[in-house]
Amino acid sequence: MQLNRVLPGLAGLFFYMNYKLENVKKINVTRPLLLDCKQTVSNFPLAYETYGKLNKNKNNAILVFHALTGDQFVSGTNPITKKDGWWVTAVGPGKAIDTNKYFVICANVIGGCMGSWGPKEINKKTNEPYGLNFPVITIRDMVKAQESLLDHLGIEKLLCATGGSMGGMQLLQFCSTFPNRTFSAIPIACSTSHSAQNIALNELARQAIMADPSWDNGEYLKKNIQPKNGLAVARMVGHISYLSEKGMQEKFGRKLQEKADYEFSFNADFQVESYLRHQGYTFVERFDANSILYITRAMDYFDLSKQFKGGLVEAFKKQNTKFLVISFSSDWLYTTKENKDIVIALNSAGANVSFAEIKTDKGHDSFLVNEPEFLKTIKGFIDSMQIKFENEKRI
Amino acid sequence: MQLNRVLPGLAGLFFYMNYKLENVKKINVTRPLLLDCKQTVSNFPLAYETYGKLNKNKNNAILVFHALTGDQFVSGTNPITKKDGWWVTAVGPGKAIDTNKYFVICANVIGGCMGSWGPKEINKKTNEPYGLNFPVITIRDMVKAQESLLDHLGIEKLLCATGGSMGGMQLLQFCSTFPNRTFSAIPIACSTSHSAQNIALNELARQAIMADPSWDNGEYLKKNIQPKNGLAVARMVGHISYLSEKGMQEKFGRKLQEKADYEFSFNADFQVESYLRHQGYTFVERFDANSILYITRAMDYFDLSKQFKGGLVEAFKKQNTKFLVISFSSDWLYTTKENKDIVIALNSAGANVSFAEIKTDKGHDSFLVNEPEFLKTIKGFIDSMQIKFENEKRI
Repeated sequence: MQLNRVLPGLAGLFFYMNYKLENVKKINVTRPLLLDCKQTVSNFPLAYETYGKLNKNKNNAILVFHALTGDQFVSGTNPITKKDGWWVTAVGPGKAIDTNKYFVICANVIGGCMGSWGPKEINKKTNEPYGLNFPVITIRDMVKAQESLLDHLGIEKLLCATGGSMGGMQLLQFCSTFPNRTFSAIPIACSTSHSAQNIALNELARQAIMADPSWDNGEYLKKNIQPKNGLAVARMVGHISYLSEKGMQEKFGRKLQEKADYEFSFNADFQVESYLRHQGYTFVERFDANSILYITRAMDYFDLSKQFKGGLVEAFKKQNTKFLVISFSSDWLYTTKENKDIVIALNSAGANVSFAEIKTDKGHDSFLVNEPEFLKTIKGFIDSMQIKFENEKRI
Repeated sequence: MQLNRVLPGLAGLFFYMNYKLENVKKINVTRPLLLDCKQTVSNFPLAYETYGKLNKNKNNAILVFHALTGDQFVSGTNPITKKDGWWVTAVGPGKAIDTNKYFVICANVIGGCMGSWGPKEINKKTNEPYGLNFPVITIRDMVKAQESLLDHLGIEKLLCATGGSMGGMQLLQFCSTFPNRTFSAIPIACSTSHSAQNIALNELARQAIMADPSWDNGEYLKKNIQPKNGLAVARMVGHISYLSEKGMQEKFGRKLQEKADYEFSFNADFQVESYLRHQGYTFVERFDANSILYITRAMDYFDLSKQFKGGLVEAFKKQNTKFLVISFSSDWLYTTKENKDIVIALNSAGANVSFAEIKTDKGHDSFLVNEPEFLKTIKGFIDSMQIKFENEKRI
């Protein structure tokens, strides 16, 4: 039997490493940052991108926090992958987050691999990539690092901050840690701490990477290789969890991949198999395996209530920010219930909060795709916040 | 940073291979079997186990079909693993399926690795393990092979046949292919074809195995090794899907594994991580990686309606069997809806069918654990079927 292992000819493998990441916009964060693991760091790079123009009053800025495998390239064409920015459905000229009106900022998280300080960066002490010598960072560490960017850009108070999934977690942390830094906030499809199932799925991804001998205890970059098989499997875990059962059934069902009947082999007979293999093995072209370990760890460690003796209510008690929490009915990774728990905590803390559950079959991925009700909801909220923010400044 | 890869000292690794599998009960199936892939085979081993005694009238036999990673050792102590049989909660003296009254039979599926003809068996043509030269088999092939065992045991008609998960799929196929061979049937937590999500989860498991360089295109047995990392990850996929979100949350939540706080490392900080690693890396002691490929493929190929031009109703139209279909409310792998679809098809075919949804948080695993309402339900059904079967024979 012939077995096609479906390792596509990855001519582009590691092309992201060859790309001049020093060409991406970045700041050098000089202010010492005490990480949750007790290490203090300073003088590290934070890569970012902006879209639209900051107005004179500096009151049209919107900060976007990206998710696990996202980066700073929210809109337009990602200069590294040459593909659309990851939130091009929502952000751009005339879009729900209209860059003709608003100044949109997004930073690559620390721990990431798109120019910010992360495990594939060079450790100045050893002159080699950090690998597992990179400290285990948290969502709070990520957010603190990004505050420096706002200072750099001279933005005292954002009009709005938003993010889905891990972006939403960063946002909740940001609002809690810096209660006066944004006028409004839209946490999307997230939670204040990972459920056991979410930790399990992340652990599965980590185990897939660490199971690959090429991972080599995180030292692979020294040999200029990637644990591409393990990383591809890790990515497949994600793609299964991002779609709802119903959405997957509607999209793929039992449809065969360009064949009339079963092949009686282990090739990709079903379209859904082909989809997963494709998603897995193209992902390795643009992402660093150790970054997945670090970022998923930060997500699993995130537990906002743990930071305060009084729990979640304490976390939000200083809020003047106006919140719109959004969930998707078919999202089984961050369920409506988990999103409602955020609303309950915000209400208990006396914060200004509204909530919308978007009915859709598109699962967790809904915030990334063209979901008109969702896009209309965030557009309406941001545009109304702009008016309120203007008025408040005038008063 | 020290990284514990949590590869336990697997002193027992492959001990199943060293165990004299020729000591397990087996028959040699001499009748030629035309497989769905069009190959014809004969003279292959089918391993099985029985519990209790067949009565004189041969009307107390219950055939159990096992699931993906099950085997013929349903009750008592598994002689290979020295652990409890996989369905010891339900089968045994005085249990719901009472071996003091009933004669319980279970065969290892072909494609499996507990003595039946499978990819780790020796190919007589090459004198080496089959590996990927083993034909891709189907649920129908498995079931046809098991019919020979009933002939061998001299059982014309079973009192009952049952099975959960893939066991349920085999049962539906068995009833369809051999409509007069069982008086009653209890399909549990199954479906008549895999959803896209189920195919995706199986594909994830296959990809994890095939991503492991030790898998070596299925040739690993020739070197007396196993792709243990890939197989362990594949098993973790299963364990996540077998529990419900709520059940996992109740069992593990965010509880830490014998530590007061986060370690800021990639060790198993959370209990759920430790659980998955343990489940994954103990599994490799008892299972063959290629068997996972073959059996998951059979599950994904299974589509009962595809075998009949008239669809599912045709599949069941010759039924005299009395059915009890059981689902579990928190099973997201084979949902209540999918189980109800079986009921609808059976009803449409004029079959005798009842249905029970068991309310539980234990997910797909519910049929394997001590779930009193479930056990009471199957006991009641089987005991009543025994009386009816006796009466029918008398008439």
